[in-house]
Amino acid sequence: MSSAAAPKPSPELIFSTLTSYQRAFALKAGIELDLFTAIAEGANDPASLCKRVNAAERGVRILADYLTIDGFLRKENGKYSLTADSAVFLDKRSPAYMGGMSHFLTSEQNIGNMWVLTDSVRKGGTASHIGDNSKPEDGRWVNFARSMGAMAVPTAGVLAQLVSANPASPIRILDIAAGHGMYGITVAKNNPRVHVTALDWPAVLEVAKENAQKAGVADRFTALAGSAFDTHLGEGYDYIFITNFLHHFDVPTNEMLLRRFHSALKPGGKTITVEFVPNEDRITPPMAAAFSLVMLAHTDAGDAYTFPEYEKMHSAAGFRNCTLQIIPELPQRLVIGEK
Amino acid sequence: MSSAAAPKPSPELIFSTLTSYQRAFALKAGIELDLFTAIAEGANDPASLCKRVNAAERGVRILADYLTIDGFLRKENGKYSLTADSAVFLDKRSPAYMGGMSHFLTSEQNIGNMWVLTDSVRKGGTASHIGDNSKPEDGRWVNFARSMGAMAVPTAGVLAQLVSANPASPIRILDIAAGHGMYGITVAKNNPRVHVTALDWPAVLEVAKENAQKAGVADRFTALAGSAFDTHLGEGYDYIFITNFLHHFDVPTNEMLLRRFHSALKPGGKTITVEFVPNEDRITPPMAAAFSLVMLAHTDAGDAYTFPEYEKMHSAAGFRNCTLQIIPELPQRLVIGEK
Repeated sequence: MSSAAAPKPSPELIFSTLTSYQRAFALKAGIELDLFTAIAEGANDPASLCKRVNAAERGVRILADYLTIDGFLRKENGKYSLTADSAVFLDKRSPAYMGGMSHFLTSEQNIGNMWVLTDSVRKGGTASHIGDNSKPEDGRWVNFARSMGAMAVPTAGVLAQLVSANPASPIRILDIAAGHGMYGITVAKNNPRVHVTALDWPAVLEVAKENAQKAGVADRFTALAGSAFDTHLGEGYDYIFITNFLHHFDVPTNEMLLRRFHSALKPGGKTITVEFVPNEDRITPPMAAAFSLVMLAHTDAGDAYTFPEYEKMHSAAGFRNCTLQIIPELPQRLVIGEK
Repeated sequence: MSSAAAPKPSPELIFSTLTSYQRAFALKAGIELDLFTAIAEGANDPASLCKRVNAAERGVRILADYLTIDGFLRKENGKYSLTADSAVFLDKRSPAYMGGMSHFLTSEQNIGNMWVLTDSVRKGGTASHIGDNSKPEDGRWVNFARSMGAMAVPTAGVLAQLVSANPASPIRILDIAAGHGMYGITVAKNNPRVHVTALDWPAVLEVAKENAQKAGVADRFTALAGSAFDTHLGEGYDYIFITNFLHHFDVPTNEMLLRRFHSALKPGGKTITVEFVPNEDRITPPMAAAFSLVMLAHTDAGDAYTFPEYEKMHSAAGFRNCTLQIIPELPQRLVIGEK
């Protein structure tokens, strides 16, 4: 028997979870109205903000209060200001601006697939009328490429350190399903010896090309239009980046893909897989473990795989070594395969 | 200058908020599949659960892990069990079962109105194609009445104590926009001297009548079909319950309604308003203050009003006294008007 009284049962977590979608839509509205930039520029009460963002004063007052409650703004004496995180990531003038993520994360398709989650649980794979999200479908992945690049930059910075530690010259990198291309591009920007080949569907590659241009690495950037499944990848790469890709597929498919990547590496070359890798309990760390549900909702058979599962896949594909690298400040982990 | 280092900026809150709808849909799926009851009855791993809830093992494994991460289940050695709150509120065999809330809180209409929140902020009122949610529309409010009754019971217990403290005999209560009727019904169940008149649209009243029957108070329960705006309310009531009603309207409308309720009270009679009442900063307490956004999304001009605002409305409507009662364990507050 415990001497402490048990806390009284409360339905609060149930209520707040069943209404948690309100939080997503409120932040989406703040981003769409560019409320954060307006506040950063000095419009700090409903009366001045409503003119600046072209919305009703009542609407702005209620939204700004809500965003304060949710931790995106501060409010003192009726005046709003940005939190430290909002100033870095939600002010459009900030180089680390990430508001664009909203276009993808709260897209009709992403939320729509969650609408039918009960059916997906029954089926054991996506019940979306569109089907598995890894089938060629440029619109979705162009949206991803346009929206999610900023989120990749911190991880890409870690990859840049890994790659620059290698003394070989030049360094050839293949970036699989490159999307926005920001992993390879960031690494190339950090190391003038790096040449990146970015593989993706043609419409998506247009975004990566733009980003390479903006980053000033277009002369060390090659666009390879096609699919990781059947396009000739080339050979002799020092590194192959496999970022947020293997989680879309089942184990046999990943083994087949890893065999293709193994063939494209030079001896001693490495794959660097960036992934949500939960611990074996599959409930920690929370963000990585929770990602499994996203794959249930969007794919036929994808998953957030554990490191032992990745180890087996790499071994089956012929890699002589596979290691896990945990970067404390990143939500994702690195799985490194060595040929 | 602070001597402590500022925490490193992190986009984690932005990411988790933009994807927070996943939490709502996961809990909805758990409730729809009745996963919690299945676990309570002893099916505690994916292999046994999937048979019990008629779903794919992979789907059940991923959903149960997610619900563990979100605090609705525990997982030890691969076996799931209910948390204390889930056992009370999500096991269908529990008398305090609240899973039914999901039908209302995650309904297509409730989420749909949030989809257009940016437009509602611009407009300063609901941009829903259905319009203001307080216009007669039985389907939505029948859903509410069928889904949200359990949530009312703790607050109704507090009302029962307030009312039973009154020595008058008998006690006549008018329950405005009664919905499920659980406020008046619970009070009647607790006090045999209480007679409740429940006002609502006819289709909604059918739910309240059923609940009165189940609670064994049908002989002290009168259904009054109509609207608070124009139906003759009767007179000489000891109490009028105004539960989650005034938040739908603007101040002049509420003053007009309160005048009607004032007329229907006997001298010394009281209105008891159950509401989300934020403090004057409009950002605390969080749940009450956040409710304002729901009214922006669903109504033309509703709001979560502060107590000084309610005081003014009561005064304008002729009440001689208006007091605030805060019940620490409840998310809502009571505003009591005295004739």
